[in-house]
Amino acid sequence: MRLLFLGDLMGRAGRTAAIDALPDLREKLKLDFVVVNAENAASGFGTTSKIAGAVIQSGADVISGGNHTFDQKDILSVIDNDNRILRPINYPEGTPGRGYAVYDAPRGKKVLVINAMGRVFMNALECPFRAIDKVLTKYRLGVTVNAIIVDFHGEATSEKMALGQYLDGRVSFVVGTHSHIPTADCQIFDKGTAYQTDAGMCGDYNSVIGMDKAEPINRFVSRMNKERFTPAGGEATVCGTFVETDDRTGLAKRIEPVRLGPRLMEHMPEV
Amino acid sequence: MRLLFLGDLMGRAGRTAAIDALPDLREKLKLDFVVVNAENAASGFGTTSKIAGAVIQSGADVISGGNHTFDQKDILSVIDNDNRILRPINYPEGTPGRGYAVYDAPRGKKVLVINAMGRVFMNALECPFRAIDKVLTKYRLGVTVNAIIVDFHGEATSEKMALGQYLDGRVSFVVGTHSHIPTADCQIFDKGTAYQTDAGMCGDYNSVIGMDKAEPINRFVSRMNKERFTPAGGEATVCGTFVETDDRTGLAKRIEPVRLGPRLMEHMPEV
Amino acid sequence: MRLLFLGDLMGRAGRTAAIDALPDLREKLKLDFVVVNAENAASGFGTTSKIAGAVIQSGADVISGGNHTFDQKDILSVIDNDNRILRPINYPEGTPGRGYAVYDAPRGKKVLVINAMGRVFMNALECPFRAIDKVLTKYRLGVTVNAIIVDFHGEATSEKMALGQYLDGRVSFVVGTHSHIPTADCQIFDKGTAYQTDAGMCGDYNSVIGMDKAEPINRFVSRMNKERFTPAGGEATVCGTFVETDDRTGLAKRIEPVRLGPRLMEHMPEV
Amino acid sequence: MRLLFLGDLMGRAGRTAAIDALPDLREKLKLDFVVVNAENAASGFGTTSKIAGAVIQSGADVISGGNHTFDQKDILSVIDNDNRILRPINYPEGTPGRGYAVYDAPRGKKVLVINAMGRVFMNALECPFRAIDKVLTKYRLGVTVNAIIVDFHGEATSEKMALGQYLDGRVSFVVGTHSHIPTADCQIFDKGTAYQTDAGMCGDYNSVIGMDKAEPINRFVSRMNKERFTPAGGEATVCGTFVETDDRTGLAKRIEPVRLGPRLMEHMPEV
Ligand SMILES: [Fe+2]
Ligand SMILES: [Fe+2]
Ligand SMILES: [Fe+2]
Ligand SMILES: [Fe+2]
Ligand SMILES: [Fe+2]
Ligand SMILES: [Fe+2]
Ligand SMILES: [Fe+2]
Ligand SMILES: [Fe+2]
Repeated sequence: MRLLFLGDLMGRAGRTAAIDALPDLREKLKLDFVVVNAENAASGFGTTSKIAGAVIQSGADVISGGNHTFDQKDILSVIDNDNRILRPINYPEGTPGRGYAVYDAPRGKKVLVINAMGRVFMNALECPFRAIDKVLTKYRLGVTVNAIIVDFHGEATSEKMALGQYLDGRVSFVVGTHSHIPTADCQIFDKGTAYQTDAGMCGDYNSVIGMDKAEPINRFVSRMNKERFTPAGGEATVCGTFVETDDRTGLAKRIEPVRLGPRLMEHMPEV
Repeated sequence: MRLLFLGDLMGRAGRTAAIDALPDLREKLKLDFVVVNAENAASGFGTTSKIAGAVIQSGADVISGGNHTFDQKDILSVIDNDNRILRPINYPEGTPGRGYAVYDAPRGKKVLVINAMGRVFMNALECPFRAIDKVLTKYRLGVTVNAIIVDFHGEATSEKMALGQYLDGRVSFVVGTHSHIPTADCQIFDKGTAYQTDAGMCGDYNSVIGMDKAEPINRFVSRMNKERFTPAGGEATVCGTFVETDDRTGLAKRIEPVRLGPRLMEHMPEV
Repeated sequence: MRLLFLGDLMGRAGRTAAIDALPDLREKLKLDFVVVNAENAASGFGTTSKIAGAVIQSGADVISGGNHTFDQKDILSVIDNDNRILRPINYPEGTPGRGYAVYDAPRGKKVLVINAMGRVFMNALECPFRAIDKVLTKYRLGVTVNAIIVDFHGEATSEKMALGQYLDGRVSFVVGTHSHIPTADCQIFDKGTAYQTDAGMCGDYNSVIGMDKAEPINRFVSRMNKERFTPAGGEATVCGTFVETDDRTGLAKRIEPVRLGPRLMEHMPEV
Repeated sequence: MRLLFLGDLMGRAGRTAAIDALPDLREKLKLDFVVVNAENAASGFGTTSKIAGAVIQSGADVISGGNHTFDQKDILSVIDNDNRILRPINYPEGTPGRGYAVYDAPRGKKVLVINAMGRVFMNALECPFRAIDKVLTKYRLGVTVNAIIVDFHGEATSEKMALGQYLDGRVSFVVGTHSHIPTADCQIFDKGTAYQTDAGMCGDYNSVIGMDKAEPINRFVSRMNKERFTPAGGEATVCGTFVETDDRTGLAKRIEPVRLGPRLMEHMPEV
């Protein structure tokens, strides 16, 4: 299968660029399945049901989230009913929404997507390693599902890489989000899991991780707040990751970054 | 000028790979100046005077550090006398060593190197933004020095990118270290400063950020320590960044990653 | 019932003072049950089986712990077999030892003791609120057990007070540990639970939270380590809390601090 | 001299109780000088010029602050001109307001008050140890000023006690704020400085550190926000500390807590 993951859509610039690019990407990369992290799609804070709908319409099969998932209360109107919208699985029991689901892909394939959140330098949630383990007792890669994608939303590179290694051989692809900067470490681990520490954001990289740069700089220098954070509005770069899996085992055969836009070194996999 | 920066040398595997690669890199990339972060060169924790000497011998002009700089007490025997070894500038007044120095480069050129440390999710030091400002009142890019390189050792992508933007137009190159994962966001900011959130480590990427993967995974899963951390010993990838500056202004004309080794997508600038 | 809780035994000074005081305290306060937090009893880091034995011998019914519980590997030799030694309940499944147990007290009474750890500014464990809830579905105060004592080992006053309020009416007594400073906020909440944010340590208060003051001050000022931390060796103050419960309901009728020693304002409940 | 310090005024309940109590306290305790921390006086977040005025009118000589000092932008209208309002001294250079001042007290006495903020588990500011050192090179206790009071606003008990010990013999009184819970560790250190880890808040202790308990509990249990935090509105307890200094040396002769109100064990020094 050919899978695409797009990192955190950042404000209007990021979500518009992703929505515009997705139809083309689906075609050029002959994609079977697309997951998009949209935790910052609505002005940088969360996503709304309307934005989620537009992203899905443009070609995303699943929308994943992170620490900003519940910033817009409107998402609560759909998160329980629409299984295409995920929130981190390791929120406590009873949290609205779900952290994973199995989806139908073309040619009768099944794809399991899991969204989890790190705990280093972040809010205290349940253990992401164990939460994912529990799902993997129900679904086995290459047996009951054809591909497994894990969006691990985390701050520390150590925790992200540890989870990747921990899941090596059991899932198709572990990709990090939340740092808003793409990492150049796409690799396939020893037992066949594709890994990248962070997919990077879809957003304006002439910024401070997608936010207009004035206020973040002000806060670092003065230690006082002057205004709210607002997403930078310049032309966005679409950042994501392309993974090709073995149809039989579900393990990765190939991982390559996707970078499309004005600021970063562009990269488009040849398919 | 042609500058090379290499990220955190991680243990024996990382330092050996860097030491082996440097002579070749100096030649192929026609380098004028090389800075290497060696805060993890000695078994992952600090560097010794002997290792620092070997790295310099192999082709580094300057060695920078970070939160692990003082892990090996032996470094105190040289850090006050040898200005080629830097520690973060924003340690408090009275700390052994220095955080910046001006160096002679070929053809009469002068290069200012500054090493600073972030404060988000890290030990509380003095303000890095102000500490660097203070140095920049003494040295002006394109006027009193021909190039200025800043190694910003930090955890949070936001703080690193904010510092990069803050210094835009005033230094040649801001590069992050500490995360041990190279970022794919090399760019030249609007006023001419080259920027990359993290250079990545020189180390074995079949690991958890350079450490043998068993113990980090154990700690994340069990929340208990079983053994010490030890650097992974497999073949290392050399990660760094190449920057070309304008001889007159000192601003950047080009920034490209350097990645040499078995695990990550290799990249070598053409010169 | 008359219950006593003693806060973190800090090094030799603290544990000796507590061991010396306990026989007298049992008599004077006509105690039915005693819990002692011993996470720092062995040179400030953890406890050993031998020290635990001595504390129990001197009059403790139960020993509780915290983030330092596993610092001394020797404790692993007894923690699985001796139910008088507790570690925080919200360590992940599979952790050696247990986080709660029911004990026999005089006159056929049963006492449930639960040890839990906070997550704010601390290591990420499972949710302490839910972990305790789960135990309380098995044991009901005034029905299946006569008293319930919760040692909540935490950093943030907000998390400790929130847990106290959360458990109000369901347990006899919630006492905090870990800060090593006694708080002056003993009170009985509206539904009958006795509460104190921190019992304080048993240790030398001419110190920095029980450690010899030179090295902590050095680290705050210089941001570098000079030596190891060692417990201060001056005369210790015994700090703890006395709670009297209603025999029928198990709720608290009275809570008063116990402070015995040279530095702090002494206080001894009249019984 | 006879000094009184009152801890964080928490919302309407806390500020009203303090304002009501101050005239009486001044009289009964024959006070020469009063400092009140008002960082939470305005609905829990900051203070306004109007509230500051009312607190001063009721008998405070100085108002100190903390991490919430700048929450209400209105305070900027007075903080530069009215030296009776302090903010932490270790905010960066150029921050509005001041972190210390010398005040006239009765009988020709001079009192230096310094407000500083901790850095452990808090925002990164400049080093509080050094910032205070710098002031103390200008003013000497018992020589140029008759009393020195330090309000150290911090989270970690270790950092607070380390600062107290660090300043021992050089100031009259170091008192902590920010935890909103009074500590029972009033003592005079070896060289004559009175010390208490936290004065506690003036606020409703039937709460979670002064906030209505429902939302804090909700956030700890669900990890989601439901509503804003609002100060608890029940009857407040006034918490503070009374210190008597030697007129000649400025060192402390006596330190005792003040606790007045419905929930905590009351205490009033005899004068
Ligand atoms: Fe994000
Ligand atoms: Fe995020
Ligand atoms: Fe490093
Ligand atoms: Fe580092
Ligand atoms: Fe402790
Ligand atoms: Fe502890
Ligand atoms: Fe406060
Ligand atoms: Fe505060």
